[in-house]
Amino acid sequence: MVIKALAFDVFGTVVDWRSSVIGQLESFGRTHGVETDWAQFADDWRAGYVPAMDRVRRGELPWTRLDDLHRGRLVELLDGAGITVGDAAIDDLNRAWHRLDPWPDSVAGLTRLKQRYTITTLSNGNVSLLTNMAKRAGLPWDCVLSAEIFRHYKPDPEAYLGCAQILDVAPDELMLAAAHPADLRAARDAGLRTAFVFRPREHGPARTLRRPAEGEFDVMADDFLDLADKLGA
Amino acid sequence: MVIKALAFDVFGTVVDWRSSVIGQLESFGRTHGVETDWAQFADDWRAGYVPAMDRVRRGELPWTRLDDLHRGRLVELLDGAGITVGDAAIDDLNRAWHRLDPWPDSVAGLTRLKQRYTITTLSNGNVSLLTNMAKRAGLPWDCVLSAEIFRHYKPDPEAYLGCAQILDVAPDELMLAAAHPADLRAARDAGLRTAFVFRPREHGPARTLRRPAEGEFDVMADDFLDLADKLGA
Repeated sequence: MVIKALAFDVFGTVVDWRSSVIGQLESFGRTHGVETDWAQFADDWRAGYVPAMDRVRRGELPWTRLDDLHRGRLVELLDGAGITVGDAAIDDLNRAWHRLDPWPDSVAGLTRLKQRYTITTLSNGNVSLLTNMAKRAGLPWDCVLSAEIFRHYKPDPEAYLGCAQILDVAPDELMLAAAHPADLRAARDAGLRTAFVFRPREHGPARTLRRPAEGEFDVMADDFLDLADKLGA
Repeated sequence: MVIKALAFDVFGTVVDWRSSVIGQLESFGRTHGVETDWAQFADDWRAGYVPAMDRVRRGELPWTRLDDLHRGRLVELLDGAGITVGDAAIDDLNRAWHRLDPWPDSVAGLTRLKQRYTITTLSNGNVSLLTNMAKRAGLPWDCVLSAEIFRHYKPDPEAYLGCAQILDVAPDELMLAAAHPADLRAARDAGLRTAFVFRPREHGPARTLRRPAEGEFDVMADDFLDLADKLGA
């Protein structure tokens, strides 16, 4: 196994989207004097993610970047909660997804991995979202690749193969690191190497996540520092 | 003038392609025991750049990334010089363009500019070339954008407008920094802001380059530190 580059899923794998979004929703609520169950709101917002991308993947929607899919869902949820604010406030809240905090090990682990490998995002988030996030959080990417560049959302094979092609490496020289087995299985089916990173708190304390079976992926890691250890970085 | 992001031309503007390529050609010559006028060879190699891209721009060639355009020209020049080496040696020499040294002020200037602005490449070099170059030279890009992503070589307007769109800024919130007036004029025609950076040694000591007229571009800078001064970074 010769790995030349590592591609990272981002939401949940690199950053703790749930705590970050809940915190920003609470702040939004205080600013605008509105109240609801913000944790549930965050989960409902995230729950709109896969169905919206699936509409693009099936061709029911033309290519639409994630910021716009997020915004559509946000407007529905605000309406449902009876919350009325101006467009600028909605735009700002929608950019909560640009301002997600990394897991505590993410920056240190990526910094180590970058010494040995080319490290890139491979996220369904759009390029500006990922760039703004990296700038704020100090994520040391070598480059920022996105479904937006390939015009295919993961788990379409074009996203994984496009990533290998644009990095000029063979699919089996590229390893996807992700906390989500479905993403990794699609990458593996496209010919990539796979590293599962365990993020048991992605969905908060109330949902217990389990590790996939040992042996299903090339590497199993507890966090990015463990991943660096296991990849010799 | 509200600038949110800076896009940089790379060859000649950020890196000293000519000295770097000549040095690598000389090393190649020593390794393979072959001799020619390597400075002329470098200039001839670079001289193939615009005509090859123009064939892509006119639709005479399908999209072809710069590595492959460079390699085609390299093979012609090696043939012309009567130099025969294996494919792996040609591939390695072709990647000389991935290993270009920055101008002495580039890293320090970009590091300052990055504090205040989003900084990206906007080069005709392909993504893997730019990523490898940045990794080796320590160029601190926020993201790596390329003609390859937009499938249009500069000076096609699609490259400049695509860059603004993917960064989610208006064209006039994006400034192109370049050492080449033709690149800047095309960016200006597409609605971008422009910064001329003077790189008098780009073509070596024998060619005298002149500054464009004062007032033609939004900013005129002697190097990246001066650009940082003038942009308040």
